Amino acid sequence: MTSFLVIGHTASTDASFSLNDLPGGGGRMDLICRAVGSSLFLSHGIRTDTICDILLLGQPHPSRIIRFDGSALRSLSPDERNIASHIKRALAIPTGKTLRQAGPGLFCKAGTLAEQLMEGKYAVLDESGIDIRTVGDEDMPDSFLLSDNQNLTGAEQEITANLPCYSLGPSIVHADHAIVLILNEIDRRRSGWN
Amino acid sequence: MTSFLVIGHTASTDASFSLNDLPGGGGRMDLICRAVGSSLFLSHGIRTDTICDILLLGQPHPSRIIRFDGSALRSLSPDERNIASHIKRALAIPTGKTLRQAGPGLFCKAGTLAEQLMEGKYAVLDESGIDIRTVGDEDMPDSFLLSDNQNLTGAEQEITANLPCYSLGPSIVHADHAIVLILNEIDRRRSGWN
Repeated sequence: MTSFLVIGHTASTDASFSLNDLPGGGGRMDLICRAVGSSLFLSHGIRTDTICDILLLGQPHPSRIIRFDGSALRSLSPDERNIASHIKRALAIPTGKTLRQAGPGLFCKAGTLAEQLMEGKYAVLDESGIDIRTVGDEDMPDSFLLSDNQNLTGAEQEITANLPCYSLGPSIVHADHAIVLILNEIDRRRSGWN
Repeated sequence: MTSFLVIGHTASTDASFSLNDLPGGGGRMDLICRAVGSSLFLSHGIRTDTICDILLLGQPHPSRIIRFDGSALRSLSPDERNIASHIKRALAIPTGKTLRQAGPGLFCKAGTLAEQLMEGKYAVLDESGIDIRTVGDEDMPDSFLLSDNQNLTGAEQEITANLPCYSLGPSIVHADHAIVLILNEIDRRRSGWN
């Protein structure tokens, strides 16, 4: 099982955002949607062994965590608009401190970064980290924390200061592209390509 | 300079497709837009040394080739809707056999796969190909042909039968994800990470 946690610093916490304005009114929800797609889609199917959690920190509500669980998802398409419609559906249900189902493989709860990080052994990505290709199989994490187009805040950096830190290459790439690179590295190791 | 050519077998050749229905009315234009985004976007900037050509084969007109040239593009955003609006703009200008500019770094012409392949030394991606990580620097191609969610047709396979063929990993991934993996491999080699 591989798990991603993607922080959307400005991503809407209310279901009322417009599918026609994901970057603006959605608070860079377009980027979050692409990250969900990169986590879950193969050419002709869903990665059933992958979870993508998104942490929405934008207006107007307290933060929300939405889970896309590849083992149970149905009828998700890879276009931003369809993924965003799933996010809207998840944001529309009453929210508590535990995950509540909004559809097959789709869940929502109230939650913070600190709480979520306690649920797995996360690694962070940073250009200063160890090249992921050089990490021993036994040290490969199964949970990865990524940020949207904004760097981690000071408070987030404090929370994540002790997490292992890996780099994916010399270029700094979007979160959805980083996820593609991580999954390729994991796929290769599992299939004996390295 | 790195160049991608992405075939959209059903992608609309008329500017009238709706930005609200890229997968359906656009003929899987969502996938084409993500491929353009993967080709050109770094975390905080555009890849100025990269070109993404898209070959649109859908209804109602003869095939169109639209070029996104990273060295000259302005005001392109990475969300599907914005990229699709650039495609609509390119499809709206009168089209001939040579590239005509529709905006900064944005061009369009009538053209076929066979014609386009003569403009570079292309490689194709296929799971049966040579692992791209094992290719010598001197053999790394600078132009890559990718297909949308459909396999190459019989006629396209004939045209491309003699092109070098590379594989990116054990999983078959979407064209936009394949582009991310190719660019990471090129980035690493150029920066001495391998």
